[in-house]
Amino acid sequence: MNKLPVNYELSHRDGKARAGVITTPHGDIKTPVFMPVGTQATVKTMNPEEVRELGADIILGNTYHLFLRPGDDVVAKFGGLHKFMNWSHPILTDSGGFQVFSLGAIRKIKEEGVYFRSHIDGSKRFISPEKSIDIQNNLGADIVMLFDECPPGQSSREYLIPSIERTTRWAKRCVTAHKRPDDQGLFAIVQGGIYEDLRDKSMNELMEMDESFSGYAIGGLAVGEPREDMYRILDYITPKLPEHKPRYLMGVGEPLDMLEAVEHGVDMMDCVQPSRIGRHGTTFTKYGRLVIKNAKYSLDPRPLDEDCDCYVCKNYTRGYIRHLFKANEMLGQKLATYHNLYFLIKMMNGARDAIIDKRFIAFKEEFIGNYTQGKDSEWIIPQRIED
Amino acid sequence: MNKLPVNYELSHRDGKARAGVITTPHGDIKTPVFMPVGTQATVKTMNPEEVRELGADIILGNTYHLFLRPGDDVVAKFGGLHKFMNWSHPILTDSGGFQVFSLGAIRKIKEEGVYFRSHIDGSKRFISPEKSIDIQNNLGADIVMLFDECPPGQSSREYLIPSIERTTRWAKRCVTAHKRPDDQGLFAIVQGGIYEDLRDKSMNELMEMDESFSGYAIGGLAVGEPREDMYRILDYITPKLPEHKPRYLMGVGEPLDMLEAVEHGVDMMDCVQPSRIGRHGTTFTKYGRLVIKNAKYSLDPRPLDEDCDCYVCKNYTRGYIRHLFKANEMLGQKLATYHNLYFLIKMMNGARDAIIDKRFIAFKEEFIGNYTQGKDSEWIIPQRIED
Ligand SMILES: [Zn+2]
Ligand SMILES: [Zn+2]
Repeated sequence: MNKLPVNYELSHRDGKARAGVITTPHGDIKTPVFMPVGTQATVKTMNPEEVRELGADIILGNTYHLFLRPGDDVVAKFGGLHKFMNWSHPILTDSGGFQVFSLGAIRKIKEEGVYFRSHIDGSKRFISPEKSIDIQNNLGADIVMLFDECPPGQSSREYLIPSIERTTRWAKRCVTAHKRPDDQGLFAIVQGGIYEDLRDKSMNELMEMDESFSGYAIGGLAVGEPREDMYRILDYITPKLPEHKPRYLMGVGEPLDMLEAVEHGVDMMDCVQPSRIGRHGTTFTKYGRLVIKNAKYSLDPRPLDEDCDCYVCKNYTRGYIRHLFKANEMLGQKLATYHNLYFLIKMMNGARDAIIDKRFIAFKEEFIGNYTQGKDSEWIIPQRIED
Repeated sequence: MNKLPVNYELSHRDGKARAGVITTPHGDIKTPVFMPVGTQATVKTMNPEEVRELGADIILGNTYHLFLRPGDDVVAKFGGLHKFMNWSHPILTDSGGFQVFSLGAIRKIKEEGVYFRSHIDGSKRFISPEKSIDIQNNLGADIVMLFDECPPGQSSREYLIPSIERTTRWAKRCVTAHKRPDDQGLFAIVQGGIYEDLRDKSMNELMEMDESFSGYAIGGLAVGEPREDMYRILDYITPKLPEHKPRYLMGVGEPLDMLEAVEHGVDMMDCVQPSRIGRHGTTFTKYGRLVIKNAKYSLDPRPLDEDCDCYVCKNYTRGYIRHLFKANEMLGQKLATYHNLYFLIKMMNGARDAIIDKRFIAFKEEFIGNYTQGKDSEWIIPQRIED
């Protein structure tokens, strides 16, 4: 087989934590990395130039959403997602599985794929492993994902075993269906819920196709299970994944969880949460979260985060941003989104530097010590359909 | 008395049309000029840097809105509107009169001022000439406006005569109340509806305070009167205004009206319409308006306007922008706003160059010839409270 289009070079270790570089057809990604989400071919509220300016090396696109609107065929006619949305750097698309499975009553899982109704217009739709890969081939992201079954966070062993086996069968179908293996790196997704042995089972089955995979995602975490279980599984499975391929923890964007994941050897993370809470007026600061609509900020001349050097914090006061939110002005949502994404990317850059200098634990402890002085971070259940 | 803080230098004439430069404490403004509106201390959807980048020399702020939220005292504590909103170039604030008078049933006009209820929370408020100037002194714009009565477009002579006389009395009170005559230029507002003799009356009464005024606005046009009446009054009154002060036609932002006004010697115009229609997906093009949600644009690889060289037209297709509007993504509203503002500013720059070259009529006729090939422009009634 040909050389894979997406590769990982491990450059530094500090305990289990890793620093490295992922190479893709659209450029390099320094890891560990936080990936902003651009669900509908736009990182909500932001110009692509701004997303780049705040430090993003890679963004996500969403197969489910883009399949429904504008349609992957439309995106393909514009030359793919990069050109369509004016972003020339790396992109990762998810498989659509997470969204389709969360449709609940309006979807039906069969061996051939998932039948569902569009949340937009109720029309009948179908996504199979082959269809998901076909959509992703049309979208043309640098990294594409297997179409897997995404079981709920509290699933039993009895539910998970056949689910894992189906995910493995679907993985084989995805590998076979992939029409652009030379310029789109395919990532496997390890399932198995909160059970160590089932995580092994899923990983081992997928590893038989290792030559087809450019990386491994850890799915089915941060989906409602207790935080202790998430950390336990991360600790168990991450170090077992192939050393020379990137490891992607899906759907995690809370600062403390992200640092925990990095400590266990995760390289990539994404989450809609930082931009979503930003659009609702909650911003990250060195000392925890800040709810900008609070009346106490109306005359506050300080930036959102006194420790931040982003465009927003250099140019705008809390008082002004509060005014924008109270007046329902879009610029407020945009400034909060910008700062929140910058905050996480800067945190990940700090983690990377700390790993290189072999002081990651000290970095993490200092970060947590500061962050937990403020409003405590909340355990986040991702909203499943809407970004 | 001291030299006025805002001055106009007339540099070129072509018929009645004028090219010149207005000097203000925050920089120069080349005229004729279109001024984007930043009602609530933000040009909706836009970063201030983008407003500057697209060519705006001056923006508007809105006294009524900023008085209610966040409060002019709050803005003053942040060092004034320039600092509050991160815009270091010229700003003009209106007097609040236009909004207050349009509140209809929830306002009461008295000799001392206008009692009204806030459209936000229903609270009882009062704006007098002194209060309007006090608010505008707090906001700190380079150009401030008299608090005048704004009669409806179809007002009778009988209604207008006492209204004009009250506006004159209010003008005297504004002049007396103005606490920053050295760094905020005060503009008079000529009323008189569609009657030539009443326009003369209003102008002549105000001219007795000419030494206090940095410029003259023409109020009470584009408020519902027939277009022919608007053009007739523009033709009649504009050339009579003092030659060495800028002339500001309030609330006009339709391309063809703007060129007509320039032809009659108007120097400054503003309107919320270009950004509002942009946010709803209607954009200007060389060949008339374009409604981007139209299905025929879904695969259109062309920019909004093939003749435009703005950031939006250089980077995005109609198909992508249509997708953003269909998917309710804010970036769509922002891109359409950006292009529409750029379009009008570029048109005004073209008008200025044409005046300098003494070919304004040819410029105007060519513009109209192209613009009216497409969807005809519509006669616009400004929406009075909401931007
Ligand atoms: Zn910041
Ligand atoms: Zn353009």
